[in-house]
Amino acid sequence: MRLSRYFLPILRETPKEAEIVSHRLMLRAGLVRQQAAGIYSWLPLGQRVLSRIERIVREEQDRAGAVEILMPTIQPADLWRESGRYDDYGKEMLRIVDRHERDMLYGPTNEEMVTEIFRSYVSSYKALPLNLYHIQWKFRDEVRPRFGVMRGREFLMKDAYSFDIDEAAARISYNKMFVAYLRTFARMGLTAIPMRAETGPIGGDLSHEFLVLAETGESGVYCHKDVLDQPVPGEGFDYSGDLDAAIAPWTAYYAATEDVHDQERFEREVPEDKRLHTRGIEVGQVFYFGTKYSAPMKATVAGPDGVERPVHSGSYGVGVSRLAGAIIEASHDDDGIIWPDSVAPFAVGLINLKPVDEATSAAAEGIYERLTKAGIDVLYDDVDNRAGAKFATMDLIGLPWQVIVGPKGIASGEVEIKRRATGERETLTIDAAINRLVAG
Amino acid sequence: MRLSRYFLPILRETPKEAEIVSHRLMLRAGLVRQQAAGIYSWLPLGQRVLSRIERIVREEQDRAGAVEILMPTIQPADLWRESGRYDDYGKEMLRIVDRHERDMLYGPTNEEMVTEIFRSYVSSYKALPLNLYHIQWKFRDEVRPRFGVMRGREFLMKDAYSFDIDEAAARISYNKMFVAYLRTFARMGLTAIPMRAETGPIGGDLSHEFLVLAETGESGVYCHKDVLDQPVPGEGFDYSGDLDAAIAPWTAYYAATEDVHDQERFEREVPEDKRLHTRGIEVGQVFYFGTKYSAPMKATVAGPDGVERPVHSGSYGVGVSRLAGAIIEASHDDDGIIWPDSVAPFAVGLINLKPVDEATSAAAEGIYERLTKAGIDVLYDDVDNRAGAKFATMDLIGLPWQVIVGPKGIASGEVEIKRRATGERETLTIDAAINRLVAG
Repeated sequence: MRLSRYFLPILRETPKEAEIVSHRLMLRAGLVRQQAAGIYSWLPLGQRVLSRIERIVREEQDRAGAVEILMPTIQPADLWRESGRYDDYGKEMLRIVDRHERDMLYGPTNEEMVTEIFRSYVSSYKALPLNLYHIQWKFRDEVRPRFGVMRGREFLMKDAYSFDIDEAAARISYNKMFVAYLRTFARMGLTAIPMRAETGPIGGDLSHEFLVLAETGESGVYCHKDVLDQPVPGEGFDYSGDLDAAIAPWTAYYAATEDVHDQERFEREVPEDKRLHTRGIEVGQVFYFGTKYSAPMKATVAGPDGVERPVHSGSYGVGVSRLAGAIIEASHDDDGIIWPDSVAPFAVGLINLKPVDEATSAAAEGIYERLTKAGIDVLYDDVDNRAGAKFATMDLIGLPWQVIVGPKGIASGEVEIKRRATGERETLTIDAAINRLVAG
Repeated sequence: MRLSRYFLPILRETPKEAEIVSHRLMLRAGLVRQQAAGIYSWLPLGQRVLSRIERIVREEQDRAGAVEILMPTIQPADLWRESGRYDDYGKEMLRIVDRHERDMLYGPTNEEMVTEIFRSYVSSYKALPLNLYHIQWKFRDEVRPRFGVMRGREFLMKDAYSFDIDEAAARISYNKMFVAYLRTFARMGLTAIPMRAETGPIGGDLSHEFLVLAETGESGVYCHKDVLDQPVPGEGFDYSGDLDAAIAPWTAYYAATEDVHDQERFEREVPEDKRLHTRGIEVGQVFYFGTKYSAPMKATVAGPDGVERPVHSGSYGVGVSRLAGAIIEASHDDDGIIWPDSVAPFAVGLINLKPVDEATSAAAEGIYERLTKAGIDVLYDDVDNRAGAKFATMDLIGLPWQVIVGPKGIASGEVEIKRRATGERETLTIDAAINRLVAG
């Protein structure tokens, strides 16, 4: 993509309204624009990040055997009356009346709707286990939205819903999502710690939150330091294999959010030099809630014995849009964002230091074409601007690699490449630079 | 994907509420489920079709130089008060009051919001031309939603918005989208005819609708028969080249929807044996509306002369979710859907006629693995069911190719392949069958 044909509105000044670094950087780097309190447009660079996060989430859900569907954003209120949550949910639910005076709502979550889908089609245990997920916009009318996309009102969430014949089977489904989440967050360069958590309005008796440790997090967390270094299941992980063994290293240590923290147990189980008390950003949560929705909504299946029973379910959320902010909280420096390769909007920022110089531009164009042909996403700064501004912008938007092409280097056939994360720079021939970038 | 682990709720009976064939087939083949009037969930097969349609739309927008963003579904009413459309829009607009008593709405279209984005960041002609698009859910509170996803209330739309310094430049942007639309619909196997159209609530003085001819279409159309056979610009089309030449063959002939039809001109320009009067399904529309939004909303840029002027704009919509229905209207037979390869949810349906037979299952598993490794999306029917039901389901869901594996064929190392569109069947060795499918 040529910068001259792109839309990258960089802000030179730090926006006053932004309280945390990810919000500041997302506004400054032209990733998002606020349209109303807690409601954002994703500008081109932000849209690319969001789609990359979404892709990783989708791939890991698919690997874990979940099946993608897509439920609508607007739901009929009657569904929520069946489960009894319509009145419970309070003012966070955006309630809507349509032209025929029917009560509707903008879905804050989808337990009711997916249970309605399930009961409409599934009647036998033979169709189980089943896990349906979707990636769709949700709305929660937060009284005080803040921190940019970290606590917005309209937000993109992946939510999966599992259906099983009994609690034992449901716990296997729960554990599959647990493993998928470990992999999902690790692929984004995050260390997300699973912690026992309250179940809140979703209900149920078993839940883990996945938290990225950050001083700006909304939740206080207490954990054993060693939980930070546990192994993440690999790409070839067998989801029909031993799930407990994959999860055990993560659940063996004390780790809890402040809501459920037990100071006495913490002090008993964790040696003093291993006690960590910090804050975290919730990026995912898994719940097992048994028959909380299936019983009132009559989502039953016949077992092998022919007896009808309500299915056992769980739900599993990932905050897709929130992750864009969480990744920045975890990966930035004074100059700007440092995108992990897996979610970077472009892999390479190619800087033409002197577009008016023919030899420089010919070289830069050639590099742009060759990298693009090799399947690498390049943002090519072909705009006539001073070098300092170009460098500052590239550092701010945080692409993993920079290639700097200037008249002096080109005279001797050389360009400079810079790794954003380390600041390491190297002068290479054009061929060597391209080979390095193609190799990753 | 193994059918035993998939969610494919086939309906054996024809749903009474469905008036047109695409709606009937989408319900029967388990593509969608209605959640409220005009509001649908996309079940797994439907979600896959929708994402394939979306990908084609995106690729062609990108090729034409449009830049992807993502605006939210919920908009503040104040934006629409600026343009004057808040009161004009009537009951089709879903109006919402949030917890702080602020007037909001579920966006039926995004001219106002994108103009707000534009004016916030762009102040010079140097940033032009600019075309921003997004693919996002919209809501129009139709008084009588029907025809399934063809006239739903919540629907997925691609909408692009161009910004130019003057009318001449804006017409180039308009023509780029015109070409992109010709390519987009052709890639989905559709013959979509551009027709002069009324501009309606979007406004402006130039507009074309793209219509797929079908007896079930909502609009009457009149055109010269030869317009059906005009050349579609190829994949390598140069958008900086001669746009007029690409468009001329399509606009040279009379073609109009009934709203703007001129019977006298029709009879004058079209020889009697070339006159076609039928119905069509609108799948896209392009508008040039000049300064209709930029003037009241003060979206101005400084020209080369330093003088501020409102930008000239157009908007360009494609009905992404509607296309799923339109494609079925254009491509089905008595047995079910016939998906064009480009949007098929899976390329191949692999039928294991006797899962309890070891040799048959070993062969089917082998074929499944080899095709999957070759990057082909396979739906593998590994379920124990009678042959007739398996064939009927495969024909109903309309995957382009079927591979039929039975004990008799396997005894001599052979399988049958069937092309859904033609019904042509061929008995081949396993290797030959795989080679045929990998070759496309």
